[in-house]
Amino acid sequence: MSKPTPISGFPEWTPAQRMIEQYVLDRIRSTFELYGFAPLETRAVEPLDQLLRKGETSKEVYVIRRLQGDPEGPAGDDALGLHFDLTVPFARYVLENAGKLHFPFRRYQIQKVWRGERPQEGRYREFLQADIDIVDRDTLAPHHEAEMPLVIGDALRSLPIPPVRIQVNNRKICEGFYRGIGLTDPEATLRAVDKLDKIGPTGVTELLAETAGATEAQAKAVLSLAEISAPDASFADAVRALGVSDPLLDEGVEELVRVVQTAAEHSPGLCVADLRIARGLDYYTGTVYETQMIGYERFGSICSGGRYDNLASAGNVSFPGVGISIGVTRLLGLLFGAGALSVSREVPTCVLVAVTNEELRAASNRVAEALRSRGIPTEVSPSAAKFGKQIRYAERRGIPYVWFPGTDGAPDEVKDIRSGEQVVAAAGEWTPPRTDLTPSIT
Amino acid sequence: MSKPTPISGFPEWTPAQRMIEQYVLDRIRSTFELYGFAPLETRAVEPLDQLLRKGETSKEVYVIRRLQGDPEGPAGDDALGLHFDLTVPFARYVLENAGKLHFPFRRYQIQKVWRGERPQEGRYREFLQADIDIVDRDTLAPHHEAEMPLVIGDALRSLPIPPVRIQVNNRKICEGFYRGIGLTDPEATLRAVDKLDKIGPTGVTELLAETAGATEAQAKAVLSLAEISAPDASFADAVRALGVSDPLLDEGVEELVRVVQTAAEHSPGLCVADLRIARGLDYYTGTVYETQMIGYERFGSICSGGRYDNLASAGNVSFPGVGISIGVTRLLGLLFGAGALSVSREVPTCVLVAVTNEELRAASNRVAEALRSRGIPTEVSPSAAKFGKQIRYAERRGIPYVWFPGTDGAPDEVKDIRSGEQVVAAAGEWTPPRTDLTPSIT
Repeated sequence: MSKPTPISGFPEWTPAQRMIEQYVLDRIRSTFELYGFAPLETRAVEPLDQLLRKGETSKEVYVIRRLQGDPEGPAGDDALGLHFDLTVPFARYVLENAGKLHFPFRRYQIQKVWRGERPQEGRYREFLQADIDIVDRDTLAPHHEAEMPLVIGDALRSLPIPPVRIQVNNRKICEGFYRGIGLTDPEATLRAVDKLDKIGPTGVTELLAETAGATEAQAKAVLSLAEISAPDASFADAVRALGVSDPLLDEGVEELVRVVQTAAEHSPGLCVADLRIARGLDYYTGTVYETQMIGYERFGSICSGGRYDNLASAGNVSFPGVGISIGVTRLLGLLFGAGALSVSREVPTCVLVAVTNEELRAASNRVAEALRSRGIPTEVSPSAAKFGKQIRYAERRGIPYVWFPGTDGAPDEVKDIRSGEQVVAAAGEWTPPRTDLTPSIT
Repeated sequence: MSKPTPISGFPEWTPAQRMIEQYVLDRIRSTFELYGFAPLETRAVEPLDQLLRKGETSKEVYVIRRLQGDPEGPAGDDALGLHFDLTVPFARYVLENAGKLHFPFRRYQIQKVWRGERPQEGRYREFLQADIDIVDRDTLAPHHEAEMPLVIGDALRSLPIPPVRIQVNNRKICEGFYRGIGLTDPEATLRAVDKLDKIGPTGVTELLAETAGATEAQAKAVLSLAEISAPDASFADAVRALGVSDPLLDEGVEELVRVVQTAAEHSPGLCVADLRIARGLDYYTGTVYETQMIGYERFGSICSGGRYDNLASAGNVSFPGVGISIGVTRLLGLLFGAGALSVSREVPTCVLVAVTNEELRAASNRVAEALRSRGIPTEVSPSAAKFGKQIRYAERRGIPYVWFPGTDGAPDEVKDIRSGEQVVAAAGEWTPPRTDLTPSIT
């Protein structure tokens, strides 16, 4: 077998990086649970027709088929694809299990998703997302839209990452405003505005003319709206100053004011109303969120979401929801790339028990058992080589302590191999400093 | 959208079941880390030629392709499949990263795998495995084979499941013995013995004649070996009593004696030498393991593995390894099906803060913040309905406490809705009993 090579877009972390990722996931999960979100996992596959309901994403779907199945068969396995986000599967799960769930239903979901995109920096074909959503039956109270940024603010604050700013907008503002100035294709208009960072105002003006039939004056108004940004409800005055009137616009402004005010009250400085935020996915119908790391704005959004009213409905019943998703792989990939995260050792092990000779391995095993029974991660040396070599085994992995079982009645001793300090110790009593017990992330 | 239906073989747990699964995964992971195994995740896909190196499993592979890709293209995405276990990807990872790893390399890996099998009870097309493996460069010390059952014994003992028995065998015993009695196709012989539970001794005798060219006397000898079972090294005497001589057989007996003796010393009653254990996968070359839950033997093995010497090699370098895998989905599916596991509530929430009226929601939010800041999972009531209705919201989810913020200068009060007891409380001080803080699993 020749040496295998990585597959573009399918990242794999080292064990040390995976320890950092697990730490991050544990903190995120812990915050989600503090807010009462229940855990959920859905299967990796969905029927292809469900995945393709929204045209925009169809180019990104991976189809699966059994190697021994019939590749031409129209039904069965051939009609399954890997999910490209966690919102579409969640909406399907809610419909499928509506009779068993209690509404409003709050769930979090931390899973891999797959997109057959062209890989580039910060874009992956396989990546991990951490989502929260709240869905209700028929109507969803607007305060849930204000709650989302608070949960995410707490979750991200608990991580070893730079501080963040959550940018919030409301699709109703955009749609109502576009309608108010006579533009009839809000989706095309949004898609053009979404490219503002990439192609600039001139590019957007051209694109608006092309794809949304906007005059120069209309394009100018659209851009004026997109330029509005404020950390508080004052954005509403700036919108009104543009002199456009529409009931949907008013509704959107009122909703966004509530989100920004709630955030300002409970978590000052976390949220900013930013009316250029559009979001690529087209199922959003109200509040939308993006999140930047301060000082790393060039990385783009690391956490996004919004309110969706039409993703799940069956017959007369609909399940409006709001959700937000942390792009964990994206976030970590960027921070690993910038060398901004490290861990104190590459194994969980706190103590390596040395082996005097193979005949005495059982004695070393007993020391390890005693330490583990008190929660101290412990390995037994794989070989009874010279102690210097056994110490190097620990050193290379960053294991801080080496334990020497006493022979011929001598007491056991434990050595801190960083300082060289060695003390007499008993496996049933000795405890490392708390900071050494588990690897620490910085 | 019509009501979606489940997809056969792709199980989905309820949030309450997922809480149990997470508890189980946390305990397994904690034990693996206590033994110094480092975490690893590999991508979900492998090149198809890697997945098909072992013929037996090729029927089970799911191939993926981009929906917009060229379905006929021989290279690129079309040559990728979903992994069907975690051992093959791990062996590939070791080869790919050998220069960066320290050997012996101990890792655990908890991930979904996919197999395009025909679904049946306890068999899934998507399921979660929790694996540990140790690989070394060139040679792997035999004590690692003895360590595996001890780790698994500790991991499974930490779970809310029935006690287990680990059955151990050694491929060298089988191969050496078969050779010693003149059978030349050990793999066909093993595959026939593997069906002993399903088709009985008569069936195996017929199958051995058909597929391995065994005479009646040879088949009888094969079955005599398979019948040997002992909780200690006495199995070796029973093997010797069969009067077959072969150096590989002797080597295997010696290795198995060591595994059984180590287990008896550190964890009496955990392991039994059981010479009928064969394992379906054909990459094993030494010790093999299966695990039964006592009282649930009909469920089959919930944790299996073995030693493999030839899975990873490049040029002159080989990386022999030993590993074992807990079938988490299988285990939980069986126990859920038997109604043997339950959780005290279906959400993480310990306290629901009532909302007096929507104008006072911010006050309830502040109570929730104060409780969360001290690690108490808290939700704020989604509506300011009558308190009776808010209490029912908690009741339906199993949330034990409802908090009533004081109005007009009155103090806050908290009610245990199980007992009805209601006491004056301050959000900065009140703490629930430890047993109520998180959902408990029984």
